[in-house]
Amino acid sequence: MLRAGIIGVTGYTGSELVRLLYAHGGVELSYVTSHSHAGRQLSEVHPHYLGIIDPLCRSFSAEEASEEADLLFFALPHGESMHLVPGLLEKGRKVIDLAADFRLKESARYRKWYEKEHSAPQYLTEAVYGLPELKGEEVKKASLVANPGCYPTSVLLGLAPLAAEGLLDWQTLVVDSKSGASGAGRNPSQALHFPECAENFKAYRVAAHQHSGEMEQELSALAGEELSFTFVPHLVPMVRGILSTIYLRLKSRRGEDEIRELFSGYYAGKDFVRLLPPPLVPETSAVYGSNYCDIALKMDERNGRLVVITAIDNLVKGAAGQAVQNMNLMAGFEENRGLKTVPIKP
Amino acid sequence: MLRAGIIGVTGYTGSELVRLLYAHGGVELSYVTSHSHAGRQLSEVHPHYLGIIDPLCRSFSAEEASEEADLLFFALPHGESMHLVPGLLEKGRKVIDLAADFRLKESARYRKWYEKEHSAPQYLTEAVYGLPELKGEEVKKASLVANPGCYPTSVLLGLAPLAAEGLLDWQTLVVDSKSGASGAGRNPSQALHFPECAENFKAYRVAAHQHSGEMEQELSALAGEELSFTFVPHLVPMVRGILSTIYLRLKSRRGEDEIRELFSGYYAGKDFVRLLPPPLVPETSAVYGSNYCDIALKMDERNGRLVVITAIDNLVKGAAGQAVQNMNLMAGFEENRGLKTVPIKP
Amino acid sequence: MLRAGIIGVTGYTGSELVRLLYAHGGVELSYVTSHSHAGRQLSEVHPHYLGIIDPLCRSFSAEEASEEADLLFFALPHGESMHLVPGLLEKGRKVIDLAADFRLKESARYRKWYEKEHSAPQYLTEAVYGLPELKGEEVKKASLVANPGCYPTSVLLGLAPLAAEGLLDWQTLVVDSKSGASGAGRNPSQALHFPECAENFKAYRVAAHQHSGEMEQELSALAGEELSFTFVPHLVPMVRGILSTIYLRLKSRRGEDEIRELFSGYYAGKDFVRLLPPPLVPETSAVYGSNYCDIALKMDERNGRLVVITAIDNLVKGAAGQAVQNMNLMAGFEENRGLKTVPIKP
Amino acid sequence: MLRAGIIGVTGYTGSELVRLLYAHGGVELSYVTSHSHAGRQLSEVHPHYLGIIDPLCRSFSAEEASEEADLLFFALPHGESMHLVPGLLEKGRKVIDLAADFRLKESARYRKWYEKEHSAPQYLTEAVYGLPELKGEEVKKASLVANPGCYPTSVLLGLAPLAAEGLLDWQTLVVDSKSGASGAGRNPSQALHFPECAENFKAYRVAAHQHSGEMEQELSALAGEELSFTFVPHLVPMVRGILSTIYLRLKSRRGEDEIRELFSGYYAGKDFVRLLPPPLVPETSAVYGSNYCDIALKMDERNGRLVVITAIDNLVKGAAGQAVQNMNLMAGFEENRGLKTVPIKP
Repeated sequence: MLRAGIIGVTGYTGSELVRLLYAHGGVELSYVTSHSHAGRQLSEVHPHYLGIIDPLCRSFSAEEASEEADLLFFALPHGESMHLVPGLLEKGRKVIDLAADFRLKESARYRKWYEKEHSAPQYLTEAVYGLPELKGEEVKKASLVANPGCYPTSVLLGLAPLAAEGLLDWQTLVVDSKSGASGAGRNPSQALHFPECAENFKAYRVAAHQHSGEMEQELSALAGEELSFTFVPHLVPMVRGILSTIYLRLKSRRGEDEIRELFSGYYAGKDFVRLLPPPLVPETSAVYGSNYCDIALKMDERNGRLVVITAIDNLVKGAAGQAVQNMNLMAGFEENRGLKTVPIKP
Repeated sequence: MLRAGIIGVTGYTGSELVRLLYAHGGVELSYVTSHSHAGRQLSEVHPHYLGIIDPLCRSFSAEEASEEADLLFFALPHGESMHLVPGLLEKGRKVIDLAADFRLKESARYRKWYEKEHSAPQYLTEAVYGLPELKGEEVKKASLVANPGCYPTSVLLGLAPLAAEGLLDWQTLVVDSKSGASGAGRNPSQALHFPECAENFKAYRVAAHQHSGEMEQELSALAGEELSFTFVPHLVPMVRGILSTIYLRLKSRRGEDEIRELFSGYYAGKDFVRLLPPPLVPETSAVYGSNYCDIALKMDERNGRLVVITAIDNLVKGAAGQAVQNMNLMAGFEENRGLKTVPIKP
Repeated sequence: MLRAGIIGVTGYTGSELVRLLYAHGGVELSYVTSHSHAGRQLSEVHPHYLGIIDPLCRSFSAEEASEEADLLFFALPHGESMHLVPGLLEKGRKVIDLAADFRLKESARYRKWYEKEHSAPQYLTEAVYGLPELKGEEVKKASLVANPGCYPTSVLLGLAPLAAEGLLDWQTLVVDSKSGASGAGRNPSQALHFPECAENFKAYRVAAHQHSGEMEQELSALAGEELSFTFVPHLVPMVRGILSTIYLRLKSRRGEDEIRELFSGYYAGKDFVRLLPPPLVPETSAVYGSNYCDIALKMDERNGRLVVITAIDNLVKGAAGQAVQNMNLMAGFEENRGLKTVPIKP
Repeated sequence: MLRAGIIGVTGYTGSELVRLLYAHGGVELSYVTSHSHAGRQLSEVHPHYLGIIDPLCRSFSAEEASEEADLLFFALPHGESMHLVPGLLEKGRKVIDLAADFRLKESARYRKWYEKEHSAPQYLTEAVYGLPELKGEEVKKASLVANPGCYPTSVLLGLAPLAAEGLLDWQTLVVDSKSGASGAGRNPSQALHFPECAENFKAYRVAAHQHSGEMEQELSALAGEELSFTFVPHLVPMVRGILSTIYLRLKSRRGEDEIRELFSGYYAGKDFVRLLPPPLVPETSAVYGSNYCDIALKMDERNGRLVVITAIDNLVKGAAGQAVQNMNLMAGFEENRGLKTVPIKP
């Protein structure tokens, strides 16, 4: 039994980790913390755990964490884990960080997108960007995995085969993403207040979202050239799900079927990427509660533009599910263990 | 491996059975049928099954059904299974019927609430009303289980301890239930058209819903007297979930704590009933996707009236999950096998 | 032109007042205040007013208020207007208070339900409980109108004809109400956070909601006997609307048609009460954005119980619309001026 | 009083016309038809009209229509009005067609996008494409106005100033639109069935939506060159609202402020276009129930790309409201009469 810990269990990604690890079967949830609810049982904060799994929430202690867990998931707000993770790595623990702290390779890029100084820049290069379909082998050997953001997961899986093949004409690239409200986390805010968010659709952080940093970093690495693109996220009046609609031209002409074969080969053997046969198009409800990423391709022949559409559950493939997938790789489990479930629909 | 069949796999309850049986581990899904989509793979109708489990939908044949499955779930519209089930029982197959056809013990009651003649009345007494928390021992020995309706599950679990204890003053009993839209099934209709159903709340079949028949039958049996009550269902703009608010006076005075103890004893050892400690009240999202029934009790001291509130997922504890729970009992599995999952929240 | 002021313009009821007064045509919005946004234009807080009507939000000053407005709407959180209203009344201004401060006639009742001492009890008897269908004549002469709560409006309109006729057997009375989320106001909270409130249905303040106080007071007065009843409110995942399902027995036997005639006579000439012909039942979307209260009646013959169902828009007939209706009466306008609009559906 | 008729009153756009014309004050609704509900009162189909305005739905008769109305709104499914409108025009009646039948100037373009032959091609050039902010003068003189589609309204208002100024580099143009479910009309379908549409987000008709035809026609005319672009519509789980996110490069370099001034000048005096000051971005709830089109501009300096975001209510500015605006121009009313209302929010 792997002893796993969750630092920050009462937020949405922390709570989702409990759900998935409970179903996993090979993991003991040995240590969980909550800053705001230390000393309470998890079910006092999230009553839906009552009678199922109900660990005590503790205050974080680096010593206890390293003694009581072999691997630790960090599910804290951005900017906190960089202060805590190094201590645990030094004690030989493995860490999967669901925040943005270790996703960027260069401290300058971190500064640019998060507008503060990184406190542990020496770990930035060591950390593996944990998108397992692209970096499975590196993840297996990693001590520190930076779990990708929700938007980046949906975008990179839709573009990786093209970038790796040198087909991505990045100057034509536009990414229009739409997310359910759980992506913004559990803290109440005016924008997420039900009467303001229901029956409403809007864009936010137009061409200025911090996830651009990691997306451009990873795409540039795949493409072998420094690139950037326009990214606009939107808020959908639903709880879970991200759908990204990606527009680009190719560096050299390919037919829709050729592109589909390219994707099909690139993701061969990858359980959680589903390339939809036409005329199917992704919809977020078809991946609800699951670790799947659905992808469809459509060539707009009239304009010589490829449209790639992807859908994920932001809390699963976009966060906790992907973290468990990374844990499986790091700890020697089958990659899909505990994650091969049917989406809940309707 | 138990070989299980689903008759009517493409409706919501049939589809939910596939999801749950896939996670069960002790069952082979050996035979599935669909009247409207015979000859197609399940994923052609429900793309979210793509790459996970994808049986061929066949036309129903009594002969094939009895040869290829040991136990059959019937998930057809009301009024159809009574024509097909007897043939399978005669061939020694076990049947769990998710429709209303075998829930009522008397053909007169069936005629009253469904306004037609029953075609196989001789099976009405043989069928076990499959609410496992109340009738687990009978279900274990049954060949034919009538799976309870969604509203009745939420109401009977909230009233059974009181009725069995002789405390239920039925002349004061009022049941106000609220259901998500999936309870009405998969066929499009004006009332369930998104623009009419979203941002809307309404009552329907006021004091005239056919589920009154089975609720009154089962409560009468528990209470040992013929009773009836006022039942009003409502439609909530959400997909899944039923919440029932139940109002009654007791035949003799009891404190809230005494009633809570009564419930606690009655459901001791029943995994799927959760009695919430005050001040918690049930909410449908806390049982989403799961087989749990959450119950809270509140004595309105000012008016001498007890309020019982229950919440279930109508497609799980109210349909497919309860059917799998019944299958577990009939086939000798652990009662909670495949069903002990954490609700998906948020 | 009547000069009207709104104290607390940035909350949901204050903002709705602006919408309705803009459409009224006989009113000049001469003075508006906001504690939290003083010094800003309304459109800086609520951009949907941009380019339409955009008053400056000021800090409240009793002197300015009384100088610049003839009639003042108070749309503050409960417990604040009782400190401010007396000063304005003494200067001869008319006041409509949308909070609960002046709804209860006795300070003891206020203390019981709001758990604090009233600071201006001498005004409690002077204030008119502003349900215009019942108290239109008193409202016309009033200086201080206490605008009813949203739940009470939906319940009292459904029961007044019965109470006035002496038919209400209050010991059998149960009221099960369901409200959209805007009823809880504009301040973010965990319970109203979109991911917690969407796809969810729950009860709250079970048999303990403070609106019981005013409902029981008014019903008792109508019935001529002190009465109480069980009231359970619920939260619906929608923005606007209240539907109340009311269960009771009558003191003497009446047929459904007789009751319908009673209601029809009681509300003759009342524009905003619509008695629905069977088999229509109220739905909240049919009154969306409007000042109507829809009512349906159904006798459950099997149990000798009458079911009354009512629907209103909680922000209009349940708050700002009713306040404008009261203003019309107080200021000598036609009662329905500015309010005779078609509900927005779908 | 202008006598107005509505052909096809029971669909969503027909019904919305009744709501708006009732509030107009200068129009008598003298003739309404419904194919499916002829002989019934409007309130029998749409109970929310009960007691407010309740015309009898008749079967369409060209003779009665021309006798009883001066101006007729056609709100029929696409492909029907082209058979009926010519007869009325010949009798001197004015017509506003809300369907697509007369929007395209060339029958070849009609054939391409609607895949059938036009039956009255001689009227295609006569019809004025009724986007009043662009063609107000033509509309005033028109006998036949083709009311623009909902998506085209949201897109053309966002691009017209750029196209007219010769700045639009159409080869870089990508339009990503998102619509509420009421845009698909009142007929139930699997895709719009509440359990399938709620908690779900998806694209549809990817790069193949028939509205491309009219958008490209009108933009080409404005730009003075034949152009095309990639257009992908999406379905949002809400009732009303369209938000379009538009991406493009300019033919010559301009700063964000210069573009804002260009828009500001172009729409000077146009009541229903609101250019939002930064950092405001449009949201559909800010135009709910109203005739406004909100627009924001953002220059993505990193990629030299302009992002234009627009929001409308698809049933008002995208259909019935725009039709009333056209009627006002054709009949000599003030352009904004009956339409200057505050959006309903929340």
